[in-house]
Amino acid sequence: MAKNEVFQFSLISALMDGVASHGTPISRVLAHGDHGLGTFRNMVGEMIVVDGEVYQMKHDGSVIHVNPEDTITPFATVTRFQATTKTKASVTGKKDLKELLTRLFPSSKNHFLAIRMDGVFRKINFRTAGGQCRPREGMVDVCARQAEHTFEGEKGTIVGFRCPEYVMGINVAGDHLHFISEDRQRGGHILSFETDGEVEVGISQMSNFHLELPTEDEEFNTAALAKDEKGIKAVEG
Amino acid sequence: MAKNEVFQFSLISALMDGVASHGTPISRVLAHGDHGLGTFRNMVGEMIVVDGEVYQMKHDGSVIHVNPEDTITPFATVTRFQATTKTKASVTGKKDLKELLTRLFPSSKNHFLAIRMDGVFRKINFRTAGGQCRPREGMVDVCARQAEHTFEGEKGTIVGFRCPEYVMGINVAGDHLHFISEDRQRGGHILSFETDGEVEVGISQMSNFHLELPTEDEEFNTAALAKDEKGIKAVEG
Repeated sequence: MAKNEVFQFSLISALMDGVASHGTPISRVLAHGDHGLGTFRNMVGEMIVVDGEVYQMKHDGSVIHVNPEDTITPFATVTRFQATTKTKASVTGKKDLKELLTRLFPSSKNHFLAIRMDGVFRKINFRTAGGQCRPREGMVDVCARQAEHTFEGEKGTIVGFRCPEYVMGINVAGDHLHFISEDRQRGGHILSFETDGEVEVGISQMSNFHLELPTEDEEFNTAALAKDEKGIKAVEG
Repeated sequence: MAKNEVFQFSLISALMDGVASHGTPISRVLAHGDHGLGTFRNMVGEMIVVDGEVYQMKHDGSVIHVNPEDTITPFATVTRFQATTKTKASVTGKKDLKELLTRLFPSSKNHFLAIRMDGVFRKINFRTAGGQCRPREGMVDVCARQAEHTFEGEKGTIVGFRCPEYVMGINVAGDHLHFISEDRQRGGHILSFETDGEVEVGISQMSNFHLELPTEDEEFNTAALAKDEKGIKAVEG
């Protein structure tokens, strides 16, 4: 796949419906990108893909460097990232980031953006999903048991995407960001953050979106996949 | 692109918002498929792609064999079609077709299907959109002026897709079918149809969806692209 195109396996609505028993080998996802996020079988932890390396950030605080050949993902979004705009910015929260993205890419509201930030974060709140208690347990219930943590003065990398409103349900509309510390020992799904002074920000706008659906997966085939916008915003916003 | 994958340029919501002044050369769309449907600049007529040939079916009843190099489409959906299931069936209307598809592909409700039917149609009602009266005129208004015709005992080909519910707004959820007569002189967007005895039916299930968005198109960039499910069903149902 060319640079700065979105590749996605399965749907966020499928996770909402608890479709997470099966999936695709992460090595197949990595064939389409080196920057991204997702989750693992049974929603055990948060996935981050940085520079082509995959990490599983688990509920108990541990981080595992994943072998992509023998690990399955039920949902992932990646791109072969090459920032077309690089800048330094001080960012206090998601609202600030949204304003920065709008200023740098004023015509991008109906396109996709890939985002990377490297630097020191004064404060960063994140969550890690602990996994399903049973097959088909939906994401709202899984996230009701999520662990929440706060880092202060942590150096690391934020990886994420901004998706347009019209993909809500297929992916997460708006900004979706994961964080991993520089030593690759801590991280998760970002709930809120602020930088400690300026950080490096790299962004690319993307106009090609490739969606691969699970096949021969009865969980997926029978799922309702109704767009639960409120639920998605609650667990992914 | 591989066989039996969906390629789509722009969004049905963009047409709903009247985004139809620009687009992409049809030759670029044909690089991804030989079977499909769509429209032309300013929504002038209905597009059908059969065996890699492109036809413009216009409001006045004329059909033009299109040169894909010098013609632009603001919206198209195609696949490199290879039927994985072939059958003969007598089909009385869209409800019948839906039941046939469900019987042949019982696990396909969350996937895409490409459909082709060849044979004699006892009755076939279709419409052709006449085009925008002004830039940004939305599809509901354009279709309020559509021409409607009925053929009886017409031999020809139906080309279409069934899309899953969750792509509503991006594409048309449900069945979307265009027809062209065997002599390539008549056709349009199907409103209703029934076969005259059995026709040849070819279907493929598709699990890969590729979306290319318009770039450097201010109409697209500024469009609201809100999901107008009722409106889409009214004009594309």
